[in-house]
Amino acid sequence: MYHKDSNLIYKRLKKEIGTFSGGTKFKLADIEIDVVGKDGIGGLIEEWFGAWAIARSLNIHNPKTTGNSQTFPDYFVGSEKEKGLLEIKTFNGTASANFDIANFDSYCLSLKEHPKRIDTDYLIFSYKMAGIRLTIDEIWLKKIWQITSPSGRWPLKTQTKRDVIYNIRPASWFGKNPKYKPFADKKAFVDALYSTELMYLKKRNLLKSEVKETPNLAGYWKAAT
Amino acid sequence: MYHKDSNLIYKRLKKEIGTFSGGTKFKLADIEIDVVGKDGIGGLIEEWFGAWAIARSLNIHNPKTTGNSQTFPDYFVGSEKEKGLLEIKTFNGTASANFDIANFDSYCLSLKEHPKRIDTDYLIFSYKMAGIRLTIDEIWLKKIWQITSPSGRWPLKTQTKRDVIYNIRPASWFGKNPKYKPFADKKAFVDALYSTELMYLKKRNLLKSEVKETPNLAGYWKAAT
Repeated sequence: MYHKDSNLIYKRLKKEIGTFSGGTKFKLADIEIDVVGKDGIGGLIEEWFGAWAIARSLNIHNPKTTGNSQTFPDYFVGSEKEKGLLEIKTFNGTASANFDIANFDSYCLSLKEHPKRIDTDYLIFSYKMAGIRLTIDEIWLKKIWQITSPSGRWPLKTQTKRDVIYNIRPASWFGKNPKYKPFADKKAFVDALYSTELMYLKKRNLLKSEVKETPNLAGYWKAAT
Repeated sequence: MYHKDSNLIYKRLKKEIGTFSGGTKFKLADIEIDVVGKDGIGGLIEEWFGAWAIARSLNIHNPKTTGNSQTFPDYFVGSEKEKGLLEIKTFNGTASANFDIANFDSYCLSLKEHPKRIDTDYLIFSYKMAGIRLTIDEIWLKKIWQITSPSGRWPLKTQTKRDVIYNIRPASWFGKNPKYKPFADKKAFVDALYSTELMYLKKRNLLKSEVKETPNLAGYWKAAT
């Protein structure tokens, strides 16, 4: 199901996970600190991962211009140009997984325009900080439908503030007995995504009530088939 | 106008600014990278600043529990307990200043409950990244009314998305000929803050149209006098 190079990368990461301990040093003028703050750790792990993979001669390359962490995807894997899509996600393992999988609006639109995006591999790092010491304590390789779920409010769990949907947020896919389980397959996720969009747009009076699908859903099936 | 210890800190920073060059190193296992990404630089500079000030025997202390960057204020200055409030703000000097000064709702409420918060000193660092090299190119010491302004939409410039106000955002206080100039004084800022709140709450049908002031504004004057 995952790209073969993602599988190789994941296998190697799991083999080395016991050694993934370290930290951040920040220096200006003569003052160097060992960083205790957690801001920006996600970006550091993502950048480090690229250097680690290259040092291990794994088949990966970085499409980003320097310092821009907003581009999709984070990395390409494999030799076929722009085929193997790999996203890196991180979260503090002492809390629940609360990273942004993607902006909701952008994802609805981009899936319509690039339906292959649904097959992106997600490499997820759970880290822990003890003072200045950072440790990676778990790593997963997943598809988006394996880390998302319904929620009480929407068919797809999202970050919603004051009735505005912002981001697609993760299910507790690693929980033993979660209230909402991840989706069974790709199709269940796509259905939940676009039925959430439909409910949301109707609520905001952007679609007539008799409408059965959003322009994005219609466009997705057209582009995917 | 500023706390005397803030003035001392600022003077010393300006004296040393030419030396404020460096960067971030991040290491896990045997792979260490010189970081090019910009995520989280604000938190690093804030943490570094505390270590720098202590190394220079400046009168400062950090009220935070380790790694929690959400607390207010970032630092206390001076010897009187919890009197000198100092906030650290940072922005990438190659773009416009776009940091969050404070969450709008929280600030409206907290000013009512702690009107002294208005006298907080803001120490603002502008940085530049060239590859792995980070440089501090300008530093300001300011009061909140000196870095905020009206905007086309509201009496106080804020980050507003889909009609929801999120954060108080900075004016271009250092611009040569800005369209909106910073406020003349503390009172002009407080007026703009609460008239924005009034407009906003009425727009969201949370206040009757004949109402002349919000509960927060009424509470502010009661607490301040």
